[in-house]
Amino acid sequence: MNYRPIEGGVTAPIGFIAGAAWAGIKNPDKKSEKPDVAVLYSESACTSAACFTRNKFCAAPVLLGREILKKGKARAIVINSGNANAATGEQGIQDARAVERTAEKLLGLGEDQVFVCSTGVIGKRLPVERVIRGLECAICRMSPEKGTDAAWAIMTTDTVKKEAAYELTLSGGVVRVGAMAKGSGMIHPNMATMLAYVTTDAAVEQAELQKMLSRAVDISFNMTTVDGDTSTNDSIFLLANGASGVAVKTEADKAAFAALVEHICLDMTKRIASDGEGATHLIEVQAHGLPTEHDARLVAKSIAGSSLFKAAVFGKDANWGRIMAAAGYSGADVDPTNADCYLASAAGKIQVMKGGFGLDFDEALAKKILSEHDITVIVRFYQGQGGATAWGCDLTYDYVKINGDYRT
Amino acid sequence: MNYRPIEGGVTAPIGFIAGAAWAGIKNPDKKSEKPDVAVLYSESACTSAACFTRNKFCAAPVLLGREILKKGKARAIVINSGNANAATGEQGIQDARAVERTAEKLLGLGEDQVFVCSTGVIGKRLPVERVIRGLECAICRMSPEKGTDAAWAIMTTDTVKKEAAYELTLSGGVVRVGAMAKGSGMIHPNMATMLAYVTTDAAVEQAELQKMLSRAVDISFNMTTVDGDTSTNDSIFLLANGASGVAVKTEADKAAFAALVEHICLDMTKRIASDGEGATHLIEVQAHGLPTEHDARLVAKSIAGSSLFKAAVFGKDANWGRIMAAAGYSGADVDPTNADCYLASAAGKIQVMKGGFGLDFDEALAKKILSEHDITVIVRFYQGQGGATAWGCDLTYDYVKINGDYRT
Repeated sequence: MNYRPIEGGVTAPIGFIAGAAWAGIKNPDKKSEKPDVAVLYSESACTSAACFTRNKFCAAPVLLGREILKKGKARAIVINSGNANAATGEQGIQDARAVERTAEKLLGLGEDQVFVCSTGVIGKRLPVERVIRGLECAICRMSPEKGTDAAWAIMTTDTVKKEAAYELTLSGGVVRVGAMAKGSGMIHPNMATMLAYVTTDAAVEQAELQKMLSRAVDISFNMTTVDGDTSTNDSIFLLANGASGVAVKTEADKAAFAALVEHICLDMTKRIASDGEGATHLIEVQAHGLPTEHDARLVAKSIAGSSLFKAAVFGKDANWGRIMAAAGYSGADVDPTNADCYLASAAGKIQVMKGGFGLDFDEALAKKILSEHDITVIVRFYQGQGGATAWGCDLTYDYVKINGDYRT
Repeated sequence: MNYRPIEGGVTAPIGFIAGAAWAGIKNPDKKSEKPDVAVLYSESACTSAACFTRNKFCAAPVLLGREILKKGKARAIVINSGNANAATGEQGIQDARAVERTAEKLLGLGEDQVFVCSTGVIGKRLPVERVIRGLECAICRMSPEKGTDAAWAIMTTDTVKKEAAYELTLSGGVVRVGAMAKGSGMIHPNMATMLAYVTTDAAVEQAELQKMLSRAVDISFNMTTVDGDTSTNDSIFLLANGASGVAVKTEADKAAFAALVEHICLDMTKRIASDGEGATHLIEVQAHGLPTEHDARLVAKSIAGSSLFKAAVFGKDANWGRIMAAAGYSGADVDPTNADCYLASAAGKIQVMKGGFGLDFDEALAKKILSEHDITVIVRFYQGQGGATAWGCDLTYDYVKINGDYRT
C-alpha cells in the first residue's frame, strides 16, 4: 500500500473547493443549523466518471446527470437534501435544469458543466427558488476548508458525516483522493448507494477513470444493503482535475490508483452500512469457495439482506440457521451438504456449522462475539474459487421508528 | 361460485381424521397446553400433490417428501413444530425416515405412505424419541373433530390457527375441501409458505391434482411475503381420497374444483400474511397494465416486500414514493412516465400519483385509509394486459422483537 490517510474529504485534493448553506428545502419555516445545499467545485477542468441507480423510477437529477456525463465537461456538483426530485415527471427535469443553469451562471461556467443531485422525500416538487437561494449562499462560502460542511449538507437520516481522504505516491509524484457520501436508508444499491463523491488532483484519462470507478462500485456500494430498497437517486461521481500536475500513466500507477479508489469506495460503503437507519451493528459477510464470483456475490448479499438474520444480530442471537437459509434462497449454486459457517468479531471467532451440519458451540462466547459493533459472518463452500464480501447492518426497533414516520 | 364455506378444516372432507399431542420438542422441561405434533390421516387410499421450497438448504423432510411424492402412495402426514430438521445433514434424513417408518407401523400402512414435515429452529437435531412419543399419543387421539388441534399443533410464532373448509357442488354430487396452514415469519415463498395442507373427499386424478395445486400455489403462496426470507421447509400438500364417491371428471368440474383450490390457497395466503410476525396490517398489492403477467408479479411482490413501504404502513404514512421506488427496482419492464397509484381500504380510496407525477391529496383521508387493518395498494401502468396481486404485511417493532430473540 502506497497510500496513507490524510485530513479532510472532497476538498483535500488540490483545486477542489466546496460550500454549503441552509435553504429550508424540507421545512422552510424551521431555520436549522444543518445546511441542505452543497456545492463542490473544481477550480480547473476535470475528467469525470459516474455511476447511477438502475431503478427505473430514477430521479430527474439522475436522468440529467447521464446527459451531462456524456458531454464530459462537468466541473461542479450541486447537491440538495430534503427533496429527492423523483417521481416529479417533466417538471422535475425542468427544475433540475434550472438549478444546473443557475449554478453554471453563478460559477461562470458554460453549458453542461454542473451535475445536480437531490436526496430526500420522493414525489414532491423541488422548491427551486429555495434551492437557488441556498446555492447562491453556498457558492459565496466556497473554500478548501468547507468540504466537511458539504458532507454535512448532504445528510438526511444519516447520523454521522461520511468523508475520507488519502495521499498516494505515484511514479510522477504525490496525488490526493478525497470522498464524501450520504446514505442510511433505501440502501440496496444496484449501482451505488444514494450519493457519493470522490475527488482527486491526479490527472486520469476519462475512460480509465470510468473503468476504475465502475469496478470499485461493483465490489463496494453494490455489495451493501441496509433495507433491500434500491433508491431512485443513487449516484456516485469521481472527478479528477489533475491539479497536482501528476498523471496516472504507468500500469503500476493505474493499479495503485485503482486500488485507492476501491479502498475509498469500500471505506464509504462501510460507513454507510454502519450508519444504516437504526443500526447498532456493522455486518460483514464473506462468502468463499463458490463455483463463481457471481455465486459468491449472490450468497454474501442475500445473507447481508436477510431481515431474519439482521433481527437476530440485533438480538445478539447466533441464529446461524437463518444465515444458511439465506444462502440457500440466494439463487446461487450452493451445495448445502458441504458448507461451513463462522461468526467472528474482535471478541473472538467460533464455528457454528461444519459440513452442512450444526455444531454445538459455546453460546456465551457467541453472545460475546455478537455484542461487538463490527461483526463478521464467514460462510465457506467447497465448490470452487468464487469469493465475495457484502456489508449490511442489523434490523432494529429504530429502523421501524425512523421509517414509520419519515415523510410527515 | 358453486362452493360455500362450512365448519372445520382438514378433517371436514369425509374420511380424513387428525390428532395432536404435546411432545416437548422445543422445550421438554416446560409442559405446555399447546400440542407440537400433529397427524393427518386418510382412512382410504388418496392421490396426493405437493409443492416444496426451492431453497437449496432445504430441510430433511422436504428431501424425503419429494421421494415419497414420487411413489404416489401417501395417505398420512406427520407434522412437528419446534424443530425444522434443516441443516442437519444425513442424520436429519435418517431422523425423518425414523419418524416416517414409525408412523407407518403405528397406522398399519406400508412403506412410503407417510409424509413428514417439520417447522421451527434450523440446525438442531430433531429429538426423534420425543417426536415419536408425541406421535403415538396423537395417533391415539385421532378423530374427525381433531382437525383444529392439528392446526394448533403446527403453529410456531403464529398467533392464530389458520383453517378453512368448503363444500362444492360438482356434476356428480357434493365434495368438500379443507385446509390448514402455518406461517408467520421466514415467509417469502419460492413455492409455498412454510406448511399448508389441503384435503378433499373428491376423487381427482394425480396429474390433474398436481396441476391444480401448482397453479393455485403460483398465484397465492408464491405471491406472499412477510420478510423476504424463503424458508427451508416450505411445503404444501393436497390429498384427495375420493371418499365422497364423487369424481372430478368433466371440464366444468375441473374448472370448478380448481377455482376452489385457488380460493382456499388464497384464503390461507391472506391469513398467513395477516398473521405475519408482528404485523398490524394485511397489505394487498395489485399491479395492472404491465407488458406481461411476469412483470406484474415482479412489481406486486417487490412493493409487498419493501421494508421501507412496510414501515410506512406501520406508521400510517402515505409514503407512496416508496411504492414507486419498489416498482422501479423490481426488475420488471415499467414505464415510470405513465403510472398511477392508489391507496384504498374500507375507509375509502385516494389517488396519490397520476401519469408518473405526485398528486396533492387529502392527508387526513390517507391516514384514515391506512388506519384500517386491510389495505390495498393499486399501481396501474399502461403498457399491456399483465396483472398480478401480492400479499404482505407491515414491518413493526414486534417483528424485530420476535426475531431478535426467537431461537434462545
